[in-house]
Amino acid sequence: MKKCDVEIFMGSDSDLKSMAKCAEVLDDFGISYNMYILSAHRTTEEALERVATAVERGVRVIIAGAGKAAHLPGVLASKTTLPVIGIPMKTSDLGGVDSLYSIVQMPSGIPVATVAIGDTGAKNAALLAVRILSVSDKELRGKMEDYQRKMRDDVLAKNERLQKEGYKNYLKG
Amino acid sequence: MKKCDVEIFMGSDSDLKSMAKCAEVLDDFGISYNMYILSAHRTTEEALERVATAVERGVRVIIAGAGKAAHLPGVLASKTTLPVIGIPMKTSDLGGVDSLYSIVQMPSGIPVATVAIGDTGAKNAALLAVRILSVSDKELRGKMEDYQRKMRDDVLAKNERLQKEGYKNYLKG
Amino acid sequence: MKKCDVEIFMGSDSDLKSMAKCAEVLDDFGISYNMYILSAHRTTEEALERVATAVERGVRVIIAGAGKAAHLPGVLASKTTLPVIGIPMKTSDLGGVDSLYSIVQMPSGIPVATVAIGDTGAKNAALLAVRILSVSDKELRGKMEDYQRKMRDDVLAKNERLQKEGYKNYLKG
Amino acid sequence: MKKCDVEIFMGSDSDLKSMAKCAEVLDDFGISYNMYILSAHRTTEEALERVATAVERGVRVIIAGAGKAAHLPGVLASKTTLPVIGIPMKTSDLGGVDSLYSIVQMPSGIPVATVAIGDTGAKNAALLAVRILSVSDKELRGKMEDYQRKMRDDVLAKNERLQKEGYKNYLKG
Amino acid sequence: MKKCDVEIFMGSDSDLKSMAKCAEVLDDFGISYNMYILSAHRTTEEALERVATAVERGVRVIIAGAGKAAHLPGVLASKTTLPVIGIPMKTSDLGGVDSLYSIVQMPSGIPVATVAIGDTGAKNAALLAVRILSVSDKELRGKMEDYQRKMRDDVLAKNERLQKEGYKNYLKG
Amino acid sequence: MKKCDVEIFMGSDSDLKSMAKCAEVLDDFGISYNMYILSAHRTTEEALERVATAVERGVRVIIAGAGKAAHLPGVLASKTTLPVIGIPMKTSDLGGVDSLYSIVQMPSGIPVATVAIGDTGAKNAALLAVRILSVSDKELRGKMEDYQRKMRDDVLAKNERLQKEGYKNYLKG
Amino acid sequence: MKKCDVEIFMGSDSDLKSMAKCAEVLDDFGISYNMYILSAHRTTEEALERVATAVERGVRVIIAGAGKAAHLPGVLASKTTLPVIGIPMKTSDLGGVDSLYSIVQMPSGIPVATVAIGDTGAKNAALLAVRILSVSDKELRGKMEDYQRKMRDDVLAKNERLQKEGYKNYLKG
Amino acid sequence: MKKCDVEIFMGSDSDLKSMAKCAEVLDDFGISYNMYILSAHRTTEEALERVATAVERGVRVIIAGAGKAAHLPGVLASKTTLPVIGIPMKTSDLGGVDSLYSIVQMPSGIPVATVAIGDTGAKNAALLAVRILSVSDKELRGKMEDYQRKMRDDVLAKNERLQKEGYKNYLKG
Repeated sequence: MKKCDVEIFMGSDSDLKSMAKCAEVLDDFGISYNMYILSAHRTTEEALERVATAVERGVRVIIAGAGKAAHLPGVLASKTTLPVIGIPMKTSDLGGVDSLYSIVQMPSGIPVATVAIGDTGAKNAALLAVRILSVSDKELRGKMEDYQRKMRDDVLAKNERLQKEGYKNYLKG
Repeated sequence: MKKCDVEIFMGSDSDLKSMAKCAEVLDDFGISYNMYILSAHRTTEEALERVATAVERGVRVIIAGAGKAAHLPGVLASKTTLPVIGIPMKTSDLGGVDSLYSIVQMPSGIPVATVAIGDTGAKNAALLAVRILSVSDKELRGKMEDYQRKMRDDVLAKNERLQKEGYKNYLKG
Repeated sequence: MKKCDVEIFMGSDSDLKSMAKCAEVLDDFGISYNMYILSAHRTTEEALERVATAVERGVRVIIAGAGKAAHLPGVLASKTTLPVIGIPMKTSDLGGVDSLYSIVQMPSGIPVATVAIGDTGAKNAALLAVRILSVSDKELRGKMEDYQRKMRDDVLAKNERLQKEGYKNYLKG
Repeated sequence: MKKCDVEIFMGSDSDLKSMAKCAEVLDDFGISYNMYILSAHRTTEEALERVATAVERGVRVIIAGAGKAAHLPGVLASKTTLPVIGIPMKTSDLGGVDSLYSIVQMPSGIPVATVAIGDTGAKNAALLAVRILSVSDKELRGKMEDYQRKMRDDVLAKNERLQKEGYKNYLKG
Repeated sequence: MKKCDVEIFMGSDSDLKSMAKCAEVLDDFGISYNMYILSAHRTTEEALERVATAVERGVRVIIAGAGKAAHLPGVLASKTTLPVIGIPMKTSDLGGVDSLYSIVQMPSGIPVATVAIGDTGAKNAALLAVRILSVSDKELRGKMEDYQRKMRDDVLAKNERLQKEGYKNYLKG
Repeated sequence: MKKCDVEIFMGSDSDLKSMAKCAEVLDDFGISYNMYILSAHRTTEEALERVATAVERGVRVIIAGAGKAAHLPGVLASKTTLPVIGIPMKTSDLGGVDSLYSIVQMPSGIPVATVAIGDTGAKNAALLAVRILSVSDKELRGKMEDYQRKMRDDVLAKNERLQKEGYKNYLKG
Repeated sequence: MKKCDVEIFMGSDSDLKSMAKCAEVLDDFGISYNMYILSAHRTTEEALERVATAVERGVRVIIAGAGKAAHLPGVLASKTTLPVIGIPMKTSDLGGVDSLYSIVQMPSGIPVATVAIGDTGAKNAALLAVRILSVSDKELRGKMEDYQRKMRDDVLAKNERLQKEGYKNYLKG
Repeated sequence: MKKCDVEIFMGSDSDLKSMAKCAEVLDDFGISYNMYILSAHRTTEEALERVATAVERGVRVIIAGAGKAAHLPGVLASKTTLPVIGIPMKTSDLGGVDSLYSIVQMPSGIPVATVAIGDTGAKNAALLAVRILSVSDKELRGKMEDYQRKMRDDVLAKNERLQKEGYKNYLKG
């Protein structure tokens, strides 16, 4: 495994399509990362070993996505001092509220930084990691400021288009 | 630790009052058990070690209670071939639906036998353990038949009292 | 009906597609089973008679799937001393939370070992049955250990593929 | 058991305090009833026998209250052609939404006439029974018209008091 | 409007497809009915007038389906002494739990006999109406007994087919 | 009834304690109002007559609080062109989510301006009425600006106190 | 920006398709409006500036739609004395209950007039705006009366068609 | 305001008792912090100004607690590049699920690191801040390792006590 700032875990490759949204944002910010498919239940040792050595391997933030009774983020958080970001996967029966409760309601002592359900959460997990890394990285903070400016500009551009075209033409788009 | 048929785990001593309901039922059936306060997150190694050696120590059923993002039952289930019964603790904010989802919605491959939220679940977990043990224990099965007969008799006695006294007197007690 | 270790009940043939996931796992483990379409409400006598004679017919575990106001697992549990595993079917309006509550929230005295909603639960119900049977069956326990090893190996193989290919190629499949 | 128009079932005497609200309304309307503590799970035979003979014993409406995984109303409905009214008991953890789903979401073929959770439901169950009985009983219908008039008069009297006293005095009152 | 035993109300023709399930069952039992599209909010007077004259027009049961903030069943119930059956329509955002709460949680004094969400509820509403009508109609009761027998026979036939064909062939259909 | 700007309806005097919070705010703003206890179900005619004549009586905003299957706001909204503000009462079993859905999920055509559950909602309903009235009343708008300024000043004063005292002393009070 | 009576805000152009339902109703009533894509988080300054100057620009009602953690309506409401109507967008994972809670549960002091989730809410938001504007606009009130009459006539026409054709032909369309 | 590493915001002093749990943990770790009562709605400018200058004032992590339609954490997150941790306050009607959804379901682009509802969340927010700060602070990381060891030792001590005393004596205390 290469040295990197962020390590991304997911419990199953069925989560990979969502977790790719996370990786894409890190790519955009030029953040190095490793990505693992390692289940909290099926490969506990490997997952624990990975996260337990993360600090000494120079990792600075852990991201973990999991669905249903989503234990992976919490289990990883218990084996490291690094901040762990948890992404609740959307589920076909309960919409992801099961994943959300299993991640966010961590008992006293072991926090998981939980973001929104599904693809939005995966993207935001990466942005949260960037924020955390930029606490001690001025250049990265500058990139985040640019990103926020760009988001603002995008909204303003859309708004301008709406003013020009009207909503009917905009929707035909 | 003494040799026993059942091992009961809880993540915190704040669950002990509920989990005592479980122990009491096992006592009534004369089932031997050990009981541990061992958190999935704070004492992962000790919890995993306990459950990983359970088969060779002659244990036959695992019971685990946990609240909120309740990972303990699922984590234990991943380290043993024994049946693991999970009890979702009641929580003060979400009523225990967080504990329930975190226990029952286990992903494919690692089942947890989930019972009702709170004290009712704690009692029923013990009764489920008795049912599992009685699969290969005729005497124990007899005790469960007695127990079910007694439950029936209790209801019938209450019903009889209701018929005799009427509901107003019954409520006066 | 042939002599068997497990009996699987469902209330309607609309549940059969999910319940087949359960049968397939039992097939893989070489566990003998009977499977019935018997509703708790439409064929109460037949369902009760089946389960009431299960012990003497040598059955050791009962599995029951049901949806909406899912009474079948609880009703069966009240007529036997065997462990009863309940599978909440997914529902089109409430996602299966109705089935889940109707199965898991059993009142004091009659436990149902509840697993996850839908296909995942159906598969896990079979694995829970194997765990229960393997309490007194060393060979079966060996098979479960193999199964868990295989699950671990599958995850590790997927992880290795992810490391080799990267997530973009992995997703292209 | 005396001949009567309505039979009230509850699964446990812990439901009696709520179910008394139901009996009181029937008393007010002069409707004869029997009341039973008979669990769907602990005394299935007795409960089924009671309801199966209800038609021939002259009963015309069944009322059943139950909590948590509340199977009693549905199980009774499956053994009679009489209308069965179900009252979901309030529960300490889930507020009664478990009882509600277990009663109202009955599968196709076996309806249960479900009313509100808890004491309100218990009272309304009796009023629904009166409505059903009054379909073919002109005198009873008259009583229900009186009852509705009285409810209206009560509200109007309270409104008049509010107009006279103002809300501050009313609240002190 | 023709003289009839049952009157069916719905608030919008978007509910008609579900409500048709209700009418079909009444057709099968040979029950006469009228069916109205009359909203509680858009045509309050017409709806109230219809239901207020129902008793004198010989109607014996009211059925009403409505979705979202589903007021129609409760509003009708307040203007008649007849039993009113409410069907919560499935909704695209909340699955029908909004309709369910708006119908079943009626305040003290005005009960609505609530059935399951959606098509299942529509069918069961008709069966509940038949049960109510059969309280004083021996012939109709006989039909309901036949119906229940047929349901039982259907399940048993499906079970027999499953025994003969096995689940794999059964699923191939 | 005196001529007034706002009319407040509630279905039962059990809602009066919450609804008083609404009246107090109107008092503070010097808005004239009438207040009625008039149920949508028990006194439909009176409630409808009141609201139907509201415009001609000079009323400009309607406020209605109701609990459980809370139909009053929606029913009133259907009989007037005035804006109707709905307050979902807190309920002891479902916390008020039943009231909320019954008020906010109004079908297409008849809006109800819904505010928060319980006392907070009652207060905010009055503030919303003030906002609506101030659309065409400059003086009232000035009062609302003062109110918002005062809220701001209150928060800032509390913050200042916190800075001065520290959180430990602040909590001691 | 042109002078107008209503200003419509949305946080993202992904909400535009729903918000168009709102604009169409305003068009039908001949109400002038501006429409903006301005996020509470990405373009806070622009959104606040817009709403802060709304009163002086002659705007009389604000409408805002937002999804998920939907802050836009509440944030706008805090910067104006105008009535703010909030539309909770439907969400793919939680159905819109997240948007609903984020809009309707505004804390004491800052009300948002919340309408139904999704397209129904968007349409009803416009109708609520018309009601608010018609408080001091007799002509507009007349249009709303016409609208309500038309809704009534539409329902009655559908009902008539149902009576003539029967439900089977009606459904064939 | 003194220079500090963490700034804690809350919208109202009614949240102070919970937020104190957060401050106490920071005290234990020797982390400097400022604490503000600043509402997102009542004191928007002051809140935005505070957070907008946080980076230049040397702040490294923002923590914000809020209840109901809890906008404060999200609004703060939109005005800074710092990581923002959100604590959903428990609410008396919905248990805090409204606060949770309003904080965790942030739309794409602006993440909030959400922790558990209520006091547990307040404590865990501080621990998450420590984790974030310790990414670039070896000494602090050492303290977190000590903290985790102490948590482990506490659990093990309780477990030992349980083994010695048995559960009955343990509960007597």
